[in-house]
Order: sequence, then C-alpha cells, then structure tokens
Amino acid sequence: MAENTIFGKIIRGEIHADIVYNDDLCIAFKDINPQAPHHILVILKEQLAGLQAADVKHQQLLGHLLLRAADIARSEGIDDSGYRLVINAGGDGGQTVSHLHIHILGGRQMTWPPG
Amino acid sequence: MAENTIFGKIIRGEIHADIVYNDDLCIAFKDINPQAPHHILVILKEQLAGLQAADVKHQQLLGHLLLRAADIARSEGIDDSGYRLVINAGGDGGQTVSHLHIHILGGRQMTWPPG
Repeated sequence: MAENTIFGKIIRGEIHADIVYNDDLCIAFKDINPQAPHHILVILKEQLAGLQAADVKHQQLLGHLLLRAADIARSEGIDDSGYRLVINAGGDGGQTVSHLHIHILGGRQMTWPPG
Repeated sequence: MAENTIFGKIIRGEIHADIVYNDDLCIAFKDINPQAPHHILVILKEQLAGLQAADVKHQQLLGHLLLRAADIARSEGIDDSGYRLVINAGGDGGQTVSHLHIHILGGRQMTWPPG
C-alpha cells in the first residue's frame, strides 16, 4: 500500500475526508470541490489506476461500487429527485487521480452534454 | 418483453441502431445525438428502469456493463486518450429513457463540471 495519491492517503486515514460510507471494499466521501449540492466520490480500497486497468476479476467489485453508489444516493436523499454518476478514465475523460473512483452528483438539475 | 421505450425497440430489432457491440446481456450502439466524436450507449438487455431499481441480484450484470464499456472504448481507439462514462439516474440526472444505460464519451477533452 505505497500508493501516494490523495485517495491512498484518505484510505489510510493520513488525510482528512468527510466520509459518508465505508466498507471492506470501498469508501465514499464528499468531493472537496463540489460541482453540485451533493457531490460524493466512491472509491475502491484496492488500488486500481482506472477503468482501463479493470479486468474480469474486478467484475463483482465494479458491480459493488455501482450498487453502493445507488445506496449512497438513497442515504443522501437524492434517489427520487435523481442524480448522475460519472467515471473519468484517462486524460480526455478528465481523470485527475490515478485511482478508480465514481462521482455521484445531485441536488440540482444536471445538464447536457456532461462536460 | 412489452417494453415500449426506444431501447426496448432497439433490442428487439424493431428500429435501427448503429450497433457496435452485442452479447447475451447487453448491446451497445452509437448515440443518435452525439455529444463527442465518440458517443456510445451501452444498455442491458434485461429491462431495468434505472440504477435506482438495481439490487444485489444485478451486481454481476452491472460489473459486466462497466467491463464491456471499457472494452468498447478500447475497440473505439479511445482507451489511451481517455473517455468519460455517465449514468443518468432520474430527473435531476437527466435520464430520458427509463432503461438503464451507460454513456461512453470520448474523442475530445471532456470538461468539468460534468453537466
């Protein structure tokens, strides 16, 4: 666990994050630069640089991430009003941390195109 | 299979779509209103209205969708340059078809916020 990204440090408790969910496989916390009234990141605890690096052994884990994202949206009270999930993969996607994560954004009308 | 959304009709072959991938569980085709040079939709063949309706029995299926989205990005040649995945859930998310689908967008720099 020598991962030195900001997410690695959050997982190890070395830097503070406003954690809203935590289990054996993933952790979720508020984005420090929120783009919507509700903006939460769900990250794997396992270090996986991004979706490009995922393979069949991650299938259950990826499904778990999406189900937990839906649960977290429910806990945040944005299940009925709706929300957007975003996964940025690589440079054109806008991925800024090399650690797979899902953005949950809600609490306002999300527009189109998605960036 | 009485689903009458546009996606139900595409799955049944009743209306044309530019299909780029097809397996037992999902199908992928070009978005008819592309928001990026590459804009593909990956949809489940099973009728699931949206992520809010997913539960633990869909875990493998959701993982499958994300892995196939990554594969499709690879086939499209946008794996290295990067891409964005988007799942719209409900009204504020901008979901317009009540059938779970993932947008893959790439071929240009995606911006922030994501809509």
